[in-house]
Amino acid sequence: MLTIAVTDGTIRPWEDDEAKHIFWHSSAHLMAEALEALYPGVKFGVGPAVETGFYYDVDLGENQITESDLKKIEDKMIELARTKETFERTEVSKADALKYFKEKGDPYKVELIQDLEDGTITFYKNGCFTDLCRGPHVKHVDDIKAVKLTAIAGAYWKGDQNRQQLTRIYGVTFPKKSMLDEYLVMLEEAKKRDHRKLGKEMELFTFSQRVGLGLPLWLPRGAVMRNVLENFLRKKQTEMGYLPVVTPHIGSKDLYVTSGHYAKYGKDSFQPIHTPQEGEEYMLKPMNCPHHCEIFRSSPRSYRDLPLRFAEFGTVYRYEQSGELHGLTRVRGFTQDDAHLFCRPDQLKEEFCKVIDLILYVFKTLKMTEFSAQISLRHQTDHSKYIGSEENWEKAESAIIEAAASKNLPTVVEYDEAAFYGPKLDFMVKDAIGRKWQLGTIQVDYNLPERFQLEYIDADGSKQRPVMIHRAPFGSIERFTAVVLEHTAGHLPIWLSPDQVKVLPVSEKYADYAEKVCELLKNSEIRASIDARNETLGKRIREISLLRVPVLVIVGEKEAAEGTVSVRMNGTDQGSKTVDEFIAFFRSIVAEELS
Amino acid sequence: MLTIAVTDGTIRPWEDDEAKHIFWHSSAHLMAEALEALYPGVKFGVGPAVETGFYYDVDLGENQITESDLKKIEDKMIELARTKETFERTEVSKADALKYFKEKGDPYKVELIQDLEDGTITFYKNGCFTDLCRGPHVKHVDDIKAVKLTAIAGAYWKGDQNRQQLTRIYGVTFPKKSMLDEYLVMLEEAKKRDHRKLGKEMELFTFSQRVGLGLPLWLPRGAVMRNVLENFLRKKQTEMGYLPVVTPHIGSKDLYVTSGHYAKYGKDSFQPIHTPQEGEEYMLKPMNCPHHCEIFRSSPRSYRDLPLRFAEFGTVYRYEQSGELHGLTRVRGFTQDDAHLFCRPDQLKEEFCKVIDLILYVFKTLKMTEFSAQISLRHQTDHSKYIGSEENWEKAESAIIEAAASKNLPTVVEYDEAAFYGPKLDFMVKDAIGRKWQLGTIQVDYNLPERFQLEYIDADGSKQRPVMIHRAPFGSIERFTAVVLEHTAGHLPIWLSPDQVKVLPVSEKYADYAEKVCELLKNSEIRASIDARNETLGKRIREISLLRVPVLVIVGEKEAAEGTVSVRMNGTDQGSKTVDEFIAFFRSIVAEELS
Repeated sequence: MLTIAVTDGTIRPWEDDEAKHIFWHSSAHLMAEALEALYPGVKFGVGPAVETGFYYDVDLGENQITESDLKKIEDKMIELARTKETFERTEVSKADALKYFKEKGDPYKVELIQDLEDGTITFYKNGCFTDLCRGPHVKHVDDIKAVKLTAIAGAYWKGDQNRQQLTRIYGVTFPKKSMLDEYLVMLEEAKKRDHRKLGKEMELFTFSQRVGLGLPLWLPRGAVMRNVLENFLRKKQTEMGYLPVVTPHIGSKDLYVTSGHYAKYGKDSFQPIHTPQEGEEYMLKPMNCPHHCEIFRSSPRSYRDLPLRFAEFGTVYRYEQSGELHGLTRVRGFTQDDAHLFCRPDQLKEEFCKVIDLILYVFKTLKMTEFSAQISLRHQTDHSKYIGSEENWEKAESAIIEAAASKNLPTVVEYDEAAFYGPKLDFMVKDAIGRKWQLGTIQVDYNLPERFQLEYIDADGSKQRPVMIHRAPFGSIERFTAVVLEHTAGHLPIWLSPDQVKVLPVSEKYADYAEKVCELLKNSEIRASIDARNETLGKRIREISLLRVPVLVIVGEKEAAEGTVSVRMNGTDQGSKTVDEFIAFFRSIVAEELS
Repeated sequence: MLTIAVTDGTIRPWEDDEAKHIFWHSSAHLMAEALEALYPGVKFGVGPAVETGFYYDVDLGENQITESDLKKIEDKMIELARTKETFERTEVSKADALKYFKEKGDPYKVELIQDLEDGTITFYKNGCFTDLCRGPHVKHVDDIKAVKLTAIAGAYWKGDQNRQQLTRIYGVTFPKKSMLDEYLVMLEEAKKRDHRKLGKEMELFTFSQRVGLGLPLWLPRGAVMRNVLENFLRKKQTEMGYLPVVTPHIGSKDLYVTSGHYAKYGKDSFQPIHTPQEGEEYMLKPMNCPHHCEIFRSSPRSYRDLPLRFAEFGTVYRYEQSGELHGLTRVRGFTQDDAHLFCRPDQLKEEFCKVIDLILYVFKTLKMTEFSAQISLRHQTDHSKYIGSEENWEKAESAIIEAAASKNLPTVVEYDEAAFYGPKLDFMVKDAIGRKWQLGTIQVDYNLPERFQLEYIDADGSKQRPVMIHRAPFGSIERFTAVVLEHTAGHLPIWLSPDQVKVLPVSEKYADYAEKVCELLKNSEIRASIDARNETLGKRIREISLLRVPVLVIVGEKEAAEGTVSVRMNGTDQGSKTVDEFIAFFRSIVAEELS
């Protein structure tokens, strides 16, 4: 097993996220050391590890660097690593820390130190480079065997566009050369699978500057796919006793003051919408829960009515800085496959189990076979920041732990990761090229029922407060679409493909027969269309391949004479079939996909 | 034929909307005369005819009137009408008009006159009452044979909440006593059918002060009904070659500046949404067309690609004053069954015909058998206010006229009623108790293609501008739901009923069998549920009748033993059937409804 020795004395397996994080954080320091050697006088902002790799924000003064300089920096990093330098930790007083960086002439570090408390400050030194840092780091810098600097970008100091623009240099390192090679192959593969590229080729969605940043426009093929996804979940949810509801995309500011969202997020959200008269204030809805609470309140509820499971494909709007936006994975408007389950405390575990079943059903159908789940609980000892009774928390935490165990979920438990309003379970899915994506989530909530004063009448006539579960198996339609596209490289399962079958006459002569075949398929509820353009079959097939239509049905003289079709599925010849045979064949494939 | 003699010398049939309008306008003057007789010193605001009847806004000074005073006013009106007074018209100068009302002490009329141009002012006098008025009026006040004052409300002068609150008195009159009686019966019937009452009883939708005024929350049964309505139209639209799209509920202000909506409606709309950083401005979308134009622009288009028909169940938000809101018919957020057809000028007529077909299909399926259509054209001679070429207008107007004629639509042509951007066709439906509702609309638009610079490449390689058709067969899901509820008194067709079948065991003993039957029905895609509460069958049936569940399936000892069910459809006994027979029976009824 590959391990990393850490300055805190631990030896950690590389597979641990924490070990990678330390490794990449140390690599940021190594890059800083290299930069200081190559560009004397460079000033440093912050240099953290990220999900894969690290970056450092630097002020290069008069110097400019471009992609072509990266090789030189990589080489310098490897050269420094080879000197077998180590990381050395020292505790420093605030005064000494300020003095050090003032003398060095690094105003960014000085600003950072000013916000720190005396007695908590540490420096880490590798080679000639000393940095303000909490650590820990790798013990031996020489563990860093392979380096790739991946990108250069601009970044405002402290994310504030009114302040200095720094140069952000991204990189990634590995303890083995072969791992970097694998990673670069994966990156190449990821580029081909980039859902933004696929979304364009497959004509699924687009963006318009004039509509606004981060606001996807779903093109016809994408809209069909969305609708199929929604119906897939809607059907299962109906079977499981969910009740659909529909609520508006705005709510009065008062609704979010009641829910507590306004106090917590109001300042950083899309700002309130004023009415031209009457002085009302509305907010774009950032989540559906407050609306669903109001639906719960709209009628008296009895213990016999519970659980009530309100489901909505609810489109919500959340402000993100334009620089943070990315395809369908970071957007400003997205549709949650949302539901809120209002239940009695004694129903919590069973409901939780059923939600896990639903999420596993979704993953299985989408062939997302590798996943893990994180159980987020309270801090082990300090419970001061959580709302809700000790008894309810214990019930909820053990309900989640038992539910996850009874479903044999691969889980990790994280303490101090619960929301202040309740514990939760988050699912991470590994895609076909090994990347992890956070998808479905299940959260227990004691807070909103309290804030909205939700009640039901119990068997003994007393008023009781229901518990709420928030859940979204997809997470959002947008994010899920992106993940499915990248996971499948655009080769969607047939049931989910917007165009399932393309009918191709070999020449215009057979267009009538092709038309007839296409009608028969459509009447059998197959999403079929025809491409009878006056182009060669080869050219048409090449163009259609960009759309990733899974099934091609080709018809020519022989087929027209015999009433058959020639079938190609995902590039593989399936031979000649009568139209009825083909329909039966098609249905059996789709049934198998959905089984 | 009942006719009305008018002061302009015409004799008009009562059936004409214009005749009724004049009749009710005259009745407002008659009521004013009666008020002046009963409450000397009363001051008058405006007193127009409305869709059915009239009102007058009055300032009663120290006097207060209540419902109990209305009889006295009605009696006085009839008494005055019996004196056979006539309406007399005089032209007056602005100075004389001001002098008259200043001397009379009526500040509201003075304010109205100040805004008028000298030379255009006329007075009408009936009995002792003189009013500023354009006329015309009925020749003989005695034509007013029956009077009913229907309501008292508050109304701000000029609709401005900062100004004086006046008393608005509503009434209606008829040339025959029997017509008033019929009208009052209809009003009673309308009360029973009020969709707000039905929506509550049938648990379809609700409102919450905390979510906001005019923003419906669709309860589970209403959400199911919406979904059925959408799928009904979606299926037909797919057959007809429409392509679904999905767009966000906001757009940058720039989008609406481009479309021209901001200049025209910006001030009276929900105000712009600001971002917390980056200084962006967004608007809640009041319509879907600009977004669809951007989708058209997202790709180069050829003459071969047209027509392109983009359809979206798009939820839009429009500010209405809180006093104007009414159930689902006047709301601040509603979902349009919208589509925009981008076509070549030579395709306009055929596309228009097909849209008429679709609207007629909707009306037929919903048993809305009585309807008429209004063709709104340009002013006959003055074409200055319309955009688009003379040639295109002529083409579009004749396309509409010919399309309507070829479909044998009962139409009226109205000149000077076209939008500035194109002519249109609006459908009015008469409901089961004779009230008219405006539903579907089809509009031709030359403006947005111009403003968005939409283009396609024609056969000869030249760039051409497409024509756009806006259309919404339902109008909106909200309004359509209201009309369907009032039309059917809540007795929805079975295909549209949210709960189609309620399974009722006669006692708890047969709950298991009922459960089994219910499962079989659900597996056959029937929306069935069970009511096995420990209550008498009679009590359960009474409660369910409020929900208007069309089919009751009752099971007891005999049914459980024989594997049958007892069927009641819309209150009529349908006898005993095996479950399979029932499913076949049910399907045949639904198929007939949709045929």
